[in-house]
Amino acid sequence: MVTLEPINILVTLDANYLKPLKVMLKSMFLNNPDDSFHVFLMHSRLTEEQVNDVDEFVGRSGHSLSVVTIGEDCFNDAPIVKHYTKEMYYRLLAFRYLPTELERILYLDPDILVINSIRSLYTTDLSGWLFAAAHHDIILAREINKLRFPQYEINEYFNTGVLLMNLNLIRERVNEHDIYQFVEKHRNSLILPDQDILNSLYSKNVKKLDELIYNYDVRYFGYNRLLVKHKPSMEEIINKTVILHFCGKRKPWHKNYRGDFHALYKHYEKLALGGSGTY
Amino acid sequence: MVTLEPINILVTLDANYLKPLKVMLKSMFLNNPDDSFHVFLMHSRLTEEQVNDVDEFVGRSGHSLSVVTIGEDCFNDAPIVKHYTKEMYYRLLAFRYLPTELERILYLDPDILVINSIRSLYTTDLSGWLFAAAHHDIILAREINKLRFPQYEINEYFNTGVLLMNLNLIRERVNEHDIYQFVEKHRNSLILPDQDILNSLYSKNVKKLDELIYNYDVRYFGYNRLLVKHKPSMEEIINKTVILHFCGKRKPWHKNYRGDFHALYKHYEKLALGGSGTY
Repeated sequence: MVTLEPINILVTLDANYLKPLKVMLKSMFLNNPDDSFHVFLMHSRLTEEQVNDVDEFVGRSGHSLSVVTIGEDCFNDAPIVKHYTKEMYYRLLAFRYLPTELERILYLDPDILVINSIRSLYTTDLSGWLFAAAHHDIILAREINKLRFPQYEINEYFNTGVLLMNLNLIRERVNEHDIYQFVEKHRNSLILPDQDILNSLYSKNVKKLDELIYNYDVRYFGYNRLLVKHKPSMEEIINKTVILHFCGKRKPWHKNYRGDFHALYKHYEKLALGGSGTY
Repeated sequence: MVTLEPINILVTLDANYLKPLKVMLKSMFLNNPDDSFHVFLMHSRLTEEQVNDVDEFVGRSGHSLSVVTIGEDCFNDAPIVKHYTKEMYYRLLAFRYLPTELERILYLDPDILVINSIRSLYTTDLSGWLFAAAHHDIILAREINKLRFPQYEINEYFNTGVLLMNLNLIRERVNEHDIYQFVEKHRNSLILPDQDILNSLYSKNVKKLDELIYNYDVRYFGYNRLLVKHKPSMEEIINKTVILHFCGKRKPWHKNYRGDFHALYKHYEKLALGGSGTY
């Protein structure tokens, strides 16, 4: 038997997303039975009990967890803008707190389901690229971003919810002070800070992934064909799409959520968290 | 380890429903990992190859299949009405072709997903009852059935897609000639023959099951509260409902189907049939 190289996964979160995190991880583990995962959990505010709970969850599935605790003293020079906390920097500056021998890692948002094999994504050739990501091709969004950051040539606005990182090259080329400077300068126009930074400073160094396969925004399934270029069938999505992303404010774990992938989400939630058994 | 009594399942079908049958069975096997199933496949028109295919499918999952072939000479006295074939009698007269030592069996339609443990349904106390079934409580349907069969007191119109049978009592009390006589008499008003027969002749001998748990019509999820008495949440359905029933003409394996449980159906379809892998 050939043992495959473990897949490194990065998640950064606060306590509100613990349950969705488990659902995401469970879906990934179940649909990648031949792979072993090393999950790096980056956080600053989880309790010991919460961290142990995630550790046990990952361990029970036969995978391993490393906890990266971000202390008070980290990101000391970073500007704080609006209502954002320092967590806005975790994703892009994760490399500073990850083991130096790590060559690549896949960052995943917790509002995700992994429904097919993730290996083709993880092994994407990153020669010369800092990151790989997909952009959600909504015409309207593109035009708005041109207005927000006119001095940067943003042809494609990448979504950073699924972000494959070439850590060796990032260590060479990504400079935290460039990032801090950008934030200072645009403190009033930031909406999704880490996503805005990535797109403004590094979008030319981001390898483009197929959004239908690696970062499918589930809201698009119901969209009119006039707004979305490609409209896959449910058959195609279930069989070929690797990552379903529950973008937007309405989440499938909220009461009164409704969407085409709600039942599937609740199915994985049951597998991850166990059913309540009463109602 | 206590070995549980195997669960007997009856399915009756033609070749068009072979794929949905596998999806239904797969969902049942996956969500009942501690149970063993004995599936009775009743048919008249499947080829040897098709039967072998189902046999292999069931065997690979660790369960067993018995094939009951209904020959030309069966149901010789039965009236044939409109466009219906003799298959309309399979469900209600199955007992004549099943092993005499069998005490109970659960009939399941192929347009079903079994998403939780089926044992509580299978072990329902049937003392004094011929059948157990759920009725779909749509006010309109009830009124229409009163008009169709005014001479029978049909207070509740049971859906026969999920039908638990007390075979000992059925052998004593169900008479094929009563059934044939009913069909002759109502040949022009039959819409769903086996369901109409059961409701007209035996509804007082049918134990009522909770439709939300044992026969949930997925179309209701989108219905207005004015039309349905109970409107469970997705959370409740995924965690508590045992059987999802894709009633009606539009089926989740059709192109252009859309519904709240489409993604979940396709998920089980992938597990049962394997993904196509290309699109």
